[in-house]
Amino acid sequence: MRFTSERRLDDGVLEREFTLGGIPGILWTPGSAPAPLILLGHPGGLHKMYPRLVARARHSAAQGYAAATIELPGSGERPRSAAAEEARADLRRALAAGERVGDEIVDRLVLPLVGQAVPEWRAALDALLALPEIGGPVGYAGGVIAIGVRLAVAEPRISAAVLFAGSFVPGAMIEEARQVTIPLLVLLQWDDEGNDRQRALDLFDAFGSPEKTLHANLGGHTGVPQFEGDDGNRFFARHLK
Amino acid sequence: MRFTSERRLDDGVLEREFTLGGIPGILWTPGSAPAPLILLGHPGGLHKMYPRLVARARHSAAQGYAAATIELPGSGERPRSAAAEEARADLRRALAAGERVGDEIVDRLVLPLVGQAVPEWRAALDALLALPEIGGPVGYAGGVIAIGVRLAVAEPRISAAVLFAGSFVPGAMIEEARQVTIPLLVLLQWDDEGNDRQRALDLFDAFGSPEKTLHANLGGHTGVPQFEGDDGNRFFARHLK
Repeated sequence: MRFTSERRLDDGVLEREFTLGGIPGILWTPGSAPAPLILLGHPGGLHKMYPRLVARARHSAAQGYAAATIELPGSGERPRSAAAEEARADLRRALAAGERVGDEIVDRLVLPLVGQAVPEWRAALDALLALPEIGGPVGYAGGVIAIGVRLAVAEPRISAAVLFAGSFVPGAMIEEARQVTIPLLVLLQWDDEGNDRQRALDLFDAFGSPEKTLHANLGGHTGVPQFEGDDGNRFFARHLK
Repeated sequence: MRFTSERRLDDGVLEREFTLGGIPGILWTPGSAPAPLILLGHPGGLHKMYPRLVARARHSAAQGYAAATIELPGSGERPRSAAAEEARADLRRALAAGERVGDEIVDRLVLPLVGQAVPEWRAALDALLALPEIGGPVGYAGGVIAIGVRLAVAEPRISAAVLFAGSFVPGAMIEEARQVTIPLLVLLQWDDEGNDRQRALDLFDAFGSPEKTLHANLGGHTGVPQFEGDDGNRFFARHLK
């Protein structure tokens, strides 16, 4: 892990860009004392997502958490894969035509992404937990929800997760969700046009976690209400001790 | 409205039992200054429900709210109706036999209850708002959810509601829900054996409110987690200004 830039935000949070095995990432720390860490999931494209990511990171830092994120495979400045680009184009075509997005397209788009991204997030976690500013339990917050599911199953250092049900979920992930046992808060935008509400409800139903909560709000993909950020912080305050 | 008993709880909340047109009720007030009011809905049986009602009232009083409740028709010490008793017996038989509870039973049980209870709650509201200790906006919190729906449509003095999706909902209420426009927080126990989850989700979908949030938690009918009480208070803090 190599830091490539560093700046202090006006609320005192230290923002550092880094690169790890060619993957760009950002780390926000609230101070020099070891802080619990929240991994910020997102749909890809760090530059485009930056305003929302930094707002979430500052919101977490105000409660004493460090936050970090890395670029997804095939997004931002990372090399594209022809197969993923083709699946993305097929998805866009189906949505534009008002068709139901077929499971085959979702599988082609999401399964390889999960397979590649999850080891990258775990490698980032190794590097982050080696820093003296990071210590204590780890949470995951955000989308892509399928990445969150696989991480929750595969990565024992993640103690709790806030998952955004804002992306398509391969049918196979429903079975995988039964193996998740950490506390979950699942956010669902009820009218998300780019999402399958019933699949999201089936996924929530499948999670094996003894504590799981679904928060559904009216509105589309990007309309998650402000108060859900506070709810997420309170959820982590209960579980990242 | 005639007060029949009065006692001061150890946290300073004044608890008074009252009777209004032969209907028993309880009022909790946090002090002598006019306080906004939360009407506490429940499934019937004030005596049996008292421990949970007083806990909810104290939780609300700690945030500066008065709280009040009245007995439901056919519950507690109020006269039974033969038709309601018969519908209740049919419901119990269907549940014991593991059958899906037919719409016809739900309609027979819930529609007359709503039709009788809602004017009673409105009369109680008239009397409560005439007291100098009560002032400002009014919220409704609890079940029977069908009573909450009708009250939210019929009673313009109710500004926001926390509804427990913990009872059967007649199909006709789905249409009525489209007329609800106040902010809603709907609580759903995901594994509630005495409830129809899909009907509850359809009801949430139908509400016409521009701000509506669903909180679903794992567990059965009486397993609503403690933290939902705090979430309910924060919801009312946003909307009962």
